[in-house]
Amino acid sequence: MDVLEAIKGRRSIRKYTDQSVSKELIEILLDAARWAPTASNQQRWRFIVLTDHSTRELIRKCSPGIFVGPPVYVVICAEETANAGEWDRKTYLADCSIAAQNMMLAAHALGLGSCVILSYSPTAIQEILDLPESVRPMLVVTLGHPAEDPEPPARRPLDEIAYEGEYGREWVR
Amino acid sequence: MDVLEAIKGRRSIRKYTDQSVSKELIEILLDAARWAPTASNQQRWRFIVLTDHSTRELIRKCSPGIFVGPPVYVVICAEETANAGEWDRKTYLADCSIAAQNMMLAAHALGLGSCVILSYSPTAIQEILDLPESVRPMLVVTLGHPAEDPEPPARRPLDEIAYEGEYGREWVR
Repeated sequence: MDVLEAIKGRRSIRKYTDQSVSKELIEILLDAARWAPTASNQQRWRFIVLTDHSTRELIRKCSPGIFVGPPVYVVICAEETANAGEWDRKTYLADCSIAAQNMMLAAHALGLGSCVILSYSPTAIQEILDLPESVRPMLVVTLGHPAEDPEPPARRPLDEIAYEGEYGREWVR
Repeated sequence: MDVLEAIKGRRSIRKYTDQSVSKELIEILLDAARWAPTASNQQRWRFIVLTDHSTRELIRKCSPGIFVGPPVYVVICAEETANAGEWDRKTYLADCSIAAQNMMLAAHALGLGSCVILSYSPTAIQEILDLPESVRPMLVVTLGHPAEDPEPPARRPLDEIAYEGEYGREWVR
């Protein structure tokens, strides 16, 4: 699938069929994530793939942003360095987000649905998955075969979000 | 260009030709950014396109991560809500990072080079661009026609970064 077509056609999918997702497909998505750029090529992302029902339910019940149904959760964590500070944590979140988008675009190209979740309980995930203190959940990507084909939500026009040369100077074609 | 090919073929470009980038191409990238998902569809990203040499130089001199040469900087900012808290700021950074990846993949498909910069001075950018206090720089994407075709930096193999069911349980095909 063409990259611009994937970028524009990807929707956040919140309804999935019961069909499981093959490991082959998941692996293509993990591989896509791995090709994302990272600050200083640190590659501190870690991807925990969850398909077990009870683990997913435990996480979902503590996470307002996760809805019922997705057969796969990928919990994207950062494995922090011992002396990580505020700036490092920002780069981890940016790096994990960029990798998440690679996964979601690849998913769309493969006919899978996805949704990125930021409204989750990091404390709950930390406990449920028994993560070492240095491994911090950054975001969750849900995956599955889509059971909906939603309309794109309204997008702001370019002249509301893009500026030329300075803040507030409207982008003009 | 195929989306998986774009994901794997995109490199961070640090050397650019002097050729300017047409507004038509930049607009395709801004439009790609606009199709990124955002938390609660808030679309708080704002994209400030800088091509003016002296503005870019002022920013570069305060930003260790920005190198000499890129003809275009896109400063991706978040327009914060009045009551934005820590969680909101996390979502802004994630949303802006995801949009940045859309831009960089689209750039690669169009034959442009790009690099995402997290090591910049937000204070300097805030002052130089005279941004309102509610508009916060999140990351910078440099753009231009590439003057290099770098080898991909080493990537960690999947078994170092992907786990199945729990942290530390190696992903096996």
